[in-house]
Amino acid sequence: MVNPPNPAIDAAPAPASDALPAFLRACRGIAGGPEDRVPVWFMRQAGRSLPEYREIRGAGSILEAIAVPELSAEITLQPVRRYGVDAAILYSDIVVPAAAIGFGVDVAPGIGPVVERPFASAADLARLRPLEPDVDTAYVLETVRILARELTVPLIGFAGAPFTVASYLIEGRPSRTYTRTKALMHGDPTLWHALMERLAEMAIASLRSQILNGAAAIQLFDSWAGALAPPDYEHFVLPHSRRVFEAIADLDVPRIHFGVGTGELLGLMAAAGADVVGVDWRVPLDVARTRVPAGTALQGNLDPVLCLAPWEVTEAAVRDVLRRNAGHPGHIFNLGHGVMPETDPSVLERVVELVHREGRCDGSVAPEVAAS
Amino acid sequence: MVNPPNPAIDAAPAPASDALPAFLRACRGIAGGPEDRVPVWFMRQAGRSLPEYREIRGAGSILEAIAVPELSAEITLQPVRRYGVDAAILYSDIVVPAAAIGFGVDVAPGIGPVVERPFASAADLARLRPLEPDVDTAYVLETVRILARELTVPLIGFAGAPFTVASYLIEGRPSRTYTRTKALMHGDPTLWHALMERLAEMAIASLRSQILNGAAAIQLFDSWAGALAPPDYEHFVLPHSRRVFEAIADLDVPRIHFGVGTGELLGLMAAAGADVVGVDWRVPLDVARTRVPAGTALQGNLDPVLCLAPWEVTEAAVRDVLRRNAGHPGHIFNLGHGVMPETDPSVLERVVELVHREGRCDGSVAPEVAAS
Repeated sequence: MVNPPNPAIDAAPAPASDALPAFLRACRGIAGGPEDRVPVWFMRQAGRSLPEYREIRGAGSILEAIAVPELSAEITLQPVRRYGVDAAILYSDIVVPAAAIGFGVDVAPGIGPVVERPFASAADLARLRPLEPDVDTAYVLETVRILARELTVPLIGFAGAPFTVASYLIEGRPSRTYTRTKALMHGDPTLWHALMERLAEMAIASLRSQILNGAAAIQLFDSWAGALAPPDYEHFVLPHSRRVFEAIADLDVPRIHFGVGTGELLGLMAAAGADVVGVDWRVPLDVARTRVPAGTALQGNLDPVLCLAPWEVTEAAVRDVLRRNAGHPGHIFNLGHGVMPETDPSVLERVVELVHREGRCDGSVAPEVAAS
Repeated sequence: MVNPPNPAIDAAPAPASDALPAFLRACRGIAGGPEDRVPVWFMRQAGRSLPEYREIRGAGSILEAIAVPELSAEITLQPVRRYGVDAAILYSDIVVPAAAIGFGVDVAPGIGPVVERPFASAADLARLRPLEPDVDTAYVLETVRILARELTVPLIGFAGAPFTVASYLIEGRPSRTYTRTKALMHGDPTLWHALMERLAEMAIASLRSQILNGAAAIQLFDSWAGALAPPDYEHFVLPHSRRVFEAIADLDVPRIHFGVGTGELLGLMAAAGADVVGVDWRVPLDVARTRVPAGTALQGNLDPVLCLAPWEVTEAAVRDVLRRNAGHPGHIFNLGHGVMPETDPSVLERVVELVHREGRCDGSVAPEVAAS
């Protein structure tokens, strides 16, 4: 005899975790079923490593390309099509807002952000008027809207964290030592905090506008925060990054917090209000897990240079990341920093395929991973 | 009634710890009495921050200056006279041995080591003949001998660790990503290990010759090892650095092992055979202490940029380092990396004075430090 239909079971909606795309599920640390997969995307997945990018990118500054919504949307979509990654990240740059309000920032090929007149004194605060995203970066929002229509995976919006943007504005170009930045921080804390407040407001305005136009998650890039000793991070940086995270909490999208060389800061970066903390390759994922609260998801953390190695080396390193995560549901596979321009896209294709095949988010570990 | 003299006490030689200079005592982790002081020296204490250095240094390459023993000895002595530091470090450069055997390395002002024809294939091994210190770097040994006669504090000799020297030889210039270095490491492990073996032998020959001519301690600079994930460090680097430390163990001088951004590697760097592990400013000293075996001394770890801050900021940061060390006898105060060229020497004078006044190595903490 066949059991009669049970409406309470048959008509029940799928649990929320099944409805959520893998990327958003992992950001929330929600355990997926055995069929569910470890999501993967790559920082700088859109860009110079892709031939289709080099074909359409044109010769101008990256800021010029970002100002053309159809072009930026296409560049954002390219790696999603090619790799089958679980998230797209908006093709843009963390200095876009500062450039858009006329601070005089450009991105020099092969160098990075360069500033014509670096931030040096209180008078320079007047050069940092509030960002009006609808007016100043309307093209970014148009790109976001196009992508929200066309993408089949979540779109990650982003902004530079106040410290990292400040470091560019103060140093005038990429730095190894952040001498001027730290000198201002310690030498004139009042001016420092005033600058950080403006940059926090800028990040908030930018992130809110991206979310309201369709971004399903955001990443706050504090790429160079790892240059700081933990007490300095805690005192001079954390309050401002916390302000950014708090000011977008009502929009209820996952918030990722990323920096390089931040092994000693992972707990503080979670405490700033992140749902997900990005980890570079220097800290094994099992060690990183001990430095953040239990509810925090982790993103990472393959050394990008390992994508230039022979495949068996890359493969073993991918499995090592999966093994150290030990099937924890709060894991988004990524590199520990951006894709190197020299990377062969076919390697990233294989990485995605491997993570999807062998990654587990139900507390188990695939036999191939366990044996690695 | 006065007690009769007690020859067993009065004639006893002072305990070894009192006879040892403070720097050597701390390297050995031997507790000093309450009068004993926390030793302090600064990486790159001899150099551009000193007006007396700029006065005598001349215009040529640093390698030319190093080749003149009287000049190098004088440059080494300058900071000892001015600051009253507890150790001198030989004025030299980690690429001196490679340059001396004709690999074609120079040190470009404002850039660092540059290599005319970078190391790229097995054929380049032939360009790395064994170092004969008595012949190839006789001028270094003459400098060491002059210093051994003139110094009143221990002289620290040094060498570049195989990995860091390899990174210069392979990249051809300072790098942020070490792409070629890691590509060779993973892509051709046989060649990698052959290169590392030669560079280990080079470091051994150089260090032994410095010790035999009068260096009282040595530091192995693996400045850029922090670019590596711990498993890569353990597999590709540690065995070669261990070989270096083992090959000088019979000479029984303290061995310091230093790198930047090595928070996750501190335990491995101790395991390589170091008596002292250098710590940059990213890892608080109390945290660093938990990552090395109990018998290991620590060196560090003030952020060098803090020496450019107002004195009350520098002072508080120095006290924070002392407080986190909590009076442990195995502590040599230093910066977390080299002195910045912009540093005002009078600040370093005050740091030395402060460390000597308030530093404790008997397990106690000075009231000013405790209150900070």
